[in-house]
Amino acid sequence: MKKEALLTEERTLDPQDWSTLNELGHRMLDDLFYYLETTRQRPVYTKPTAAALASMQQPVPEQPQDAKAVYEEFFNHVLPFNINNIHPRFWAWVQGGGTPFGMLADMLASGMNANVSIGDSMPMYVEKQVLDWSKEMMGFPETASGLLLSGASLANITALVVARHAANRDIKTKGLQSVAGPLTVYGSSETHNCVLKGVEVIGIGSDNFRKVPVDADYRIRTDELRRMLLEDRAAGYIPFCIVGNAGTVNTGAIDPLNELAAIAKEHKLWLHVDGAFGAIPNLLPEFADSLKGLELADSLSFDFHKWLYVNYEAACVLIRDPQLHREAFASAVNYLTLHERGLSAGPDGFNNFGMELSRGFKALKIWMSLKQNGLETYRTLIRQNLQQAQYLAELVQMQPELELLAPVPLNIVCFRFNPGNYITKQLNELNREILMRLHEQGIAAPSYTVLNGEYAIRAAITNHRSRFTDFELLVNETVRLGKECLLTT
Amino acid sequence: MKKEALLTEERTLDPQDWSTLNELGHRMLDDLFYYLETTRQRPVYTKPTAAALASMQQPVPEQPQDAKAVYEEFFNHVLPFNINNIHPRFWAWVQGGGTPFGMLADMLASGMNANVSIGDSMPMYVEKQVLDWSKEMMGFPETASGLLLSGASLANITALVVARHAANRDIKTKGLQSVAGPLTVYGSSETHNCVLKGVEVIGIGSDNFRKVPVDADYRIRTDELRRMLLEDRAAGYIPFCIVGNAGTVNTGAIDPLNELAAIAKEHKLWLHVDGAFGAIPNLLPEFADSLKGLELADSLSFDFHKWLYVNYEAACVLIRDPQLHREAFASAVNYLTLHERGLSAGPDGFNNFGMELSRGFKALKIWMSLKQNGLETYRTLIRQNLQQAQYLAELVQMQPELELLAPVPLNIVCFRFNPGNYITKQLNELNREILMRLHEQGIAAPSYTVLNGEYAIRAAITNHRSRFTDFELLVNETVRLGKECLLTT
Ligand SMILES: Cc1ncc(COP(=O)(O)O)c(C=O)c1O
Ligand SMILES: Cc1ncc(COP(=O)(O)O)c(C=O)c1O
Repeated sequence: MKKEALLTEERTLDPQDWSTLNELGHRMLDDLFYYLETTRQRPVYTKPTAAALASMQQPVPEQPQDAKAVYEEFFNHVLPFNINNIHPRFWAWVQGGGTPFGMLADMLASGMNANVSIGDSMPMYVEKQVLDWSKEMMGFPETASGLLLSGASLANITALVVARHAANRDIKTKGLQSVAGPLTVYGSSETHNCVLKGVEVIGIGSDNFRKVPVDADYRIRTDELRRMLLEDRAAGYIPFCIVGNAGTVNTGAIDPLNELAAIAKEHKLWLHVDGAFGAIPNLLPEFADSLKGLELADSLSFDFHKWLYVNYEAACVLIRDPQLHREAFASAVNYLTLHERGLSAGPDGFNNFGMELSRGFKALKIWMSLKQNGLETYRTLIRQNLQQAQYLAELVQMQPELELLAPVPLNIVCFRFNPGNYITKQLNELNREILMRLHEQGIAAPSYTVLNGEYAIRAAITNHRSRFTDFELLVNETVRLGKECLLTT
Repeated sequence: MKKEALLTEERTLDPQDWSTLNELGHRMLDDLFYYLETTRQRPVYTKPTAAALASMQQPVPEQPQDAKAVYEEFFNHVLPFNINNIHPRFWAWVQGGGTPFGMLADMLASGMNANVSIGDSMPMYVEKQVLDWSKEMMGFPETASGLLLSGASLANITALVVARHAANRDIKTKGLQSVAGPLTVYGSSETHNCVLKGVEVIGIGSDNFRKVPVDADYRIRTDELRRMLLEDRAAGYIPFCIVGNAGTVNTGAIDPLNELAAIAKEHKLWLHVDGAFGAIPNLLPEFADSLKGLELADSLSFDFHKWLYVNYEAACVLIRDPQLHREAFASAVNYLTLHERGLSAGPDGFNNFGMELSRGFKALKIWMSLKQNGLETYRTLIRQNLQQAQYLAELVQMQPELELLAPVPLNIVCFRFNPGNYITKQLNELNREILMRLHEQGIAAPSYTVLNGEYAIRAAITNHRSRFTDFELLVNETVRLGKECLLTT
């Protein structure tokens, strides 16, 4: 190989002309700022056009294309058909809306291209700072460990792996097939599906997730839990973990965590709390009672991208016992051993605390957002969402054609249009149709669930852009569409 | 609650003054462009200062802080101490360097704040397009399914869950403890640790990962594999999966995939290929022979953030059998059922194909990058890295004091300083010291591994900014530092 021949052909993916790309970058930034600033003026939902869909059925590109042309395709075919949780009237599933400052932080993180796994570099310390803050916010001890993740789903799985390890340290090497009697996990019937998925993924099997019945407020029945624990023990099962809910996905119910902590202690079980969004009000003193026990959990999951409005993805798991956490995931690997000095020095690798090796710099947007807003601002916004939920519930109750379908302990409101004289099946179809029309007409985007067989329109209010009037619109339009549906069916 | 009282207090996290934040955004963009354009002028490694470290030991902020001040803290205390895989002489672990265009794409994705999980929105279709392209690139059938993930680690775990499901569909519900005989997985002793971690996470246990010995080229010995399979079967184990390596982390060895596919077929086993970086040369016709069999795998993992230079995080798993893939992860959930129209319509949710529910818009930077560069550009860059690896190997072999420690079938070069007359232990210490000085002095950032007990300086060349002269510098400086170490110890 001739070096000279090689040198002349050297290429890079950096632009040949930095200023042209830089100019395009500025245009993108302005476009996105305009897009965010004017979101209220657009429909909450816009269905992708045939042209947009066709643009995503292309063969893999062989030849380079001008950056500007690529951006224009994005601008015309992708941006207008966003899922649009940035809109003030988006209340579907449980999605935060992000912020423009978070977007800028993500740009910085992506430009640095930091892989936050191993090495003596600042992104490692930023994540450690964010984890320390997370412990403070959740009342966990300073000595606890933690990890940032893509969402509560992975956070829950991570916690379950540690719980399983606490139950039996041989499982890591010998597998579940080596241990006697099926291990069992307990949580209310309202527990989020991702916990069941975690139970499946780690090899426990969803049949061994015991769905404990709930009371009228959708909170776990601890009497039933106690009964099931005794029964299972007697039948040869090995209970090892209770999952408590701080805010269920359907209605925002908060399990009696303090009692769960007591039961866990008594039965020597791991207590994991899924606080995807419902752990966040722990920042508010007025939730000291209802969230009491959260700080006693062995592990806790919560999302920054939901009720802390951080841009996707951003979640956290905290584990009380850092040794156990590390043991559950770490292994000595030649190509990843820490050195004393240089790039390979630094803190214990995050890969020793979870399933991922390569990990992006999610910590930056969280760090910058928490600094920019301060907890005081979040408290204001969280309270605002809580008040909006109460306001919506009141509006629903004031409307004779509407019906509240569940208590509103947090930020989730389940309701339906019910003009009377219809059976459940008809009401379910009617409200499903209303929901689709709310979306199609770009009015508002709550989502849905089914409570005791009844289809509910469900608004999960983790939206810092919503105003009180937005909920008036939702209520009025639901009634209007309900009547419209009655006329046309 | 008085509506009027509430209205006056309404808050949002959007800036009160958009133009000031916009201005700051433009400054950030310019700073990052300058940072990326001038990366070659800075040391490859800079240790975080005490002031920077102290800035990350603060209590959680209570009060808001000016956005500009927050950015300045980032600029002074975070940015200068990057892990710095963006540098032309970063060859540590296996990390790609990202691109400025990728950074801009990430800004767009974050601004949209898309949660790419469920719903009839364009980000869903962009990911589907990227998955279709991935299949094309890897020779997988159009009918295969796939998922974007944070890295090959999660991609491998995802594939292992599907492989386990293929072996026994009861495990999902009944758990591993319900099936007879321990399930076993096979892969070479050079298999990446994340695969073992996956085997642990899913409950199989790392003892049930059989480390098959390798030949002199670090490729799996298929005779040993056959022997172990028969032995295990006879002993009551249940082999269910072979993991082939397309590019091992230590030396870039490519297992004989075609033969593994034949063995898998014969023994009715799942063949998963970990092609984190080594699957990428499948784009080059000259690799048709050595990667033959890749396209026969039941599942395949590869990273976009390594040898396709996409900004972190970006990886992909492909699964030949889409039904099996879905079955392994899906469950019917009231609050996630698809509707016929509106926001809740659209493609099958990605949550049905993996562990995550909330998922960021990783697809955008991949889609935009592939379009901007076209496969032709990637082919050129991948070939350049391959030639650079050969060039470095030649330089090492031409230097009497240096020693090549492994064959170089791909883009990884393992070597050491060996002036003669030292035993292994001394050479190991010496080269470890050389590596730390290479880092500390900001010269170059290869990393390290241990091959048959010998410490190796290891350059993994997935860097689109490296030039041939950078490898000359590495070689010359290694020799210089080696001699310096000899003098001072
Ligand atoms: C209670 C609860 N747990 C877990 C999750 C899953 O979180 P993520 O989507 O961040 O993975 C959700 C999502 O809505 C949830 O509401
Ligand atoms: C062969 C191989 N497999 C898997 C991985 C893990 O990939 P990731 O860091 O993207 O999770 C690596 C990382 O270097 C690797 O080299």
